[in-house]
Amino acid sequence: MLLKADKNNSITVAVDGNGGDRDALAGIGKAAKFALTLYPGMKLIVYGARRLEEDLARGQALGPRCEFRPAPVQIPQDESPRSVLSGYSQSSMRKAIECVREGEAQAVISAGGTGPLVVLSRHILGTIGRIRPALCAKIPAGPGRFSLMLDLGANARCTPEDLCCFARLGTAAGRVILGESEPACAVLNIGSELGKGNELVQGARELISSCKGLRCNGFTEADRLFTGDNDIIVTDGFTGNIALKSAEGVARVFFHGQGLKRYFAKLARPEWLMPWQYNGSLLLGVRGTVVKSHASARQEALAVAIVEAAKAVKAGLCQALEEDQLTRP
Amino acid sequence: MLLKADKNNSITVAVDGNGGDRDALAGIGKAAKFALTLYPGMKLIVYGARRLEEDLARGQALGPRCEFRPAPVQIPQDESPRSVLSGYSQSSMRKAIECVREGEAQAVISAGGTGPLVVLSRHILGTIGRIRPALCAKIPAGPGRFSLMLDLGANARCTPEDLCCFARLGTAAGRVILGESEPACAVLNIGSELGKGNELVQGARELISSCKGLRCNGFTEADRLFTGDNDIIVTDGFTGNIALKSAEGVARVFFHGQGLKRYFAKLARPEWLMPWQYNGSLLLGVRGTVVKSHASARQEALAVAIVEAAKAVKAGLCQALEEDQLTRP
Repeated sequence: MLLKADKNNSITVAVDGNGGDRDALAGIGKAAKFALTLYPGMKLIVYGARRLEEDLARGQALGPRCEFRPAPVQIPQDESPRSVLSGYSQSSMRKAIECVREGEAQAVISAGGTGPLVVLSRHILGTIGRIRPALCAKIPAGPGRFSLMLDLGANARCTPEDLCCFARLGTAAGRVILGESEPACAVLNIGSELGKGNELVQGARELISSCKGLRCNGFTEADRLFTGDNDIIVTDGFTGNIALKSAEGVARVFFHGQGLKRYFAKLARPEWLMPWQYNGSLLLGVRGTVVKSHASARQEALAVAIVEAAKAVKAGLCQALEEDQLTRP
Repeated sequence: MLLKADKNNSITVAVDGNGGDRDALAGIGKAAKFALTLYPGMKLIVYGARRLEEDLARGQALGPRCEFRPAPVQIPQDESPRSVLSGYSQSSMRKAIECVREGEAQAVISAGGTGPLVVLSRHILGTIGRIRPALCAKIPAGPGRFSLMLDLGANARCTPEDLCCFARLGTAAGRVILGESEPACAVLNIGSELGKGNELVQGARELISSCKGLRCNGFTEADRLFTGDNDIIVTDGFTGNIALKSAEGVARVFFHGQGLKRYFAKLARPEWLMPWQYNGSLLLGVRGTVVKSHASARQEALAVAIVEAAKAVKAGLCQALEEDQLTRP
């Protein structure tokens, strides 16, 4: 399995073309073209239903840098793990992940269901050590600044040990992605005082504080998520998903105002907060670069997520996580 | 204990003047004046440090409709339940709650810590049946429309039975506050499909679906909180707190843009989403009207919360909850 860019410094990203909402997928041709323009050293292999080939042609993406491979089957996003593993051998998601295992691509991106993507990635690529993989997003923290937040839905049930493990993953990823030598890490909680919250966050804070190589900032509250107070924000997948979706919901209310308000909102919105700029969550902890795109992501957002995948490969994210795991006490 | 307006149809609200952030409290005089103007049939009894009396005088609030009573002690917001119960007999929070128990006031409002407020209210006023009280907020759902969401932080650890109990409380409150005869109720989750989420929400959904007198809409996601899809949104206190605070955090980014953006944001913001309009969470399940104001609430927001308290008394909210509890199968 090739985890890094190949000898020619070319990076290939496998795209699960079937995942995501129907409307969103209509623009895959343009998204591919946009991504190829943004990242000149990149190639794409797109798996999906036949009509995607036409869309790729219409978007002027098909060519030496973008190959289409038919894989008509789409995995329903709420399919059970058992069914995901036993069936769907012709699904675009499975084929795209297998493409990474075979070393043809170094990264895979999908807008399909989180559950199936996590299950298949773990199964096909394997995990780094005994880690529970977690979804990690760049969240905006000011103009040109980001924090990393994990988990966002790969694990609806977590233990304090899981959260400590996420802190390790996030810190190692933060060094690579944020360029911080000692990323500051905090646990998402309903208050910043020591005694606040439930057993999960209490235990996680203790473990993270006493873990070598982690810089623990204690607790942080959800209204401080977008302020850059912390480089890494750690939470269970249930809470992380709720926090980000709630933020999205409010942002949408602003963007979709009526009449003049809509116009002013366009002028008012901080560019750095635009959702499409931070599409693409990394599934950290599996042995390969796996990116989950928002199911409703449109062209620009999908292109951004594809480029994120290539950048993660280029930066050697997976190797960094493996090395960190090897040095773990 | 008088739960309803007295014979003269006058409503008295006891105000814990010491709670909340220091900056926010500076405006209590103006807040009181504003509230008295908004609600002509209301009287206030303000407990707090001496300097509050001056502030009330400066705000032209002191007079026959607004009495000041010295109570210098403030309970730290992260004080342990044991210490809250055993000490602080001269605290403004305790005195204000006792004022409701004695029948002098019909409602109490505090911007102090959620923990102390819940512990003291339960202890002094008692609960309706064996209910675990929950904090319930009106959340904006469009121009002039609201949903009710609970719990928001009174219970960091919940069982499915607790969430079902919150659904009962919320539904009974929804009839009174929203004027809906059959409020539709949903459980906050990370997906709307049946199998999504953890044991807590799965169990809660089952209980609520099979509970007579409740209209269950299944699951709802956090990006649909402000759309009015549901009248009542039920969640544990940890998740509810995270969801609302995350939304606040994003809204703040918009409102506090730089330069011209700030100006456009003012023009763009939907009036119905302004945070100060929906300040004041009701602690449902205790035998009296208890309102929690945001710790950082300013004059207008504090006034709104005081008026909310009076309105809840006027509408007979507590009686409605007690009656619902009595008819419980």
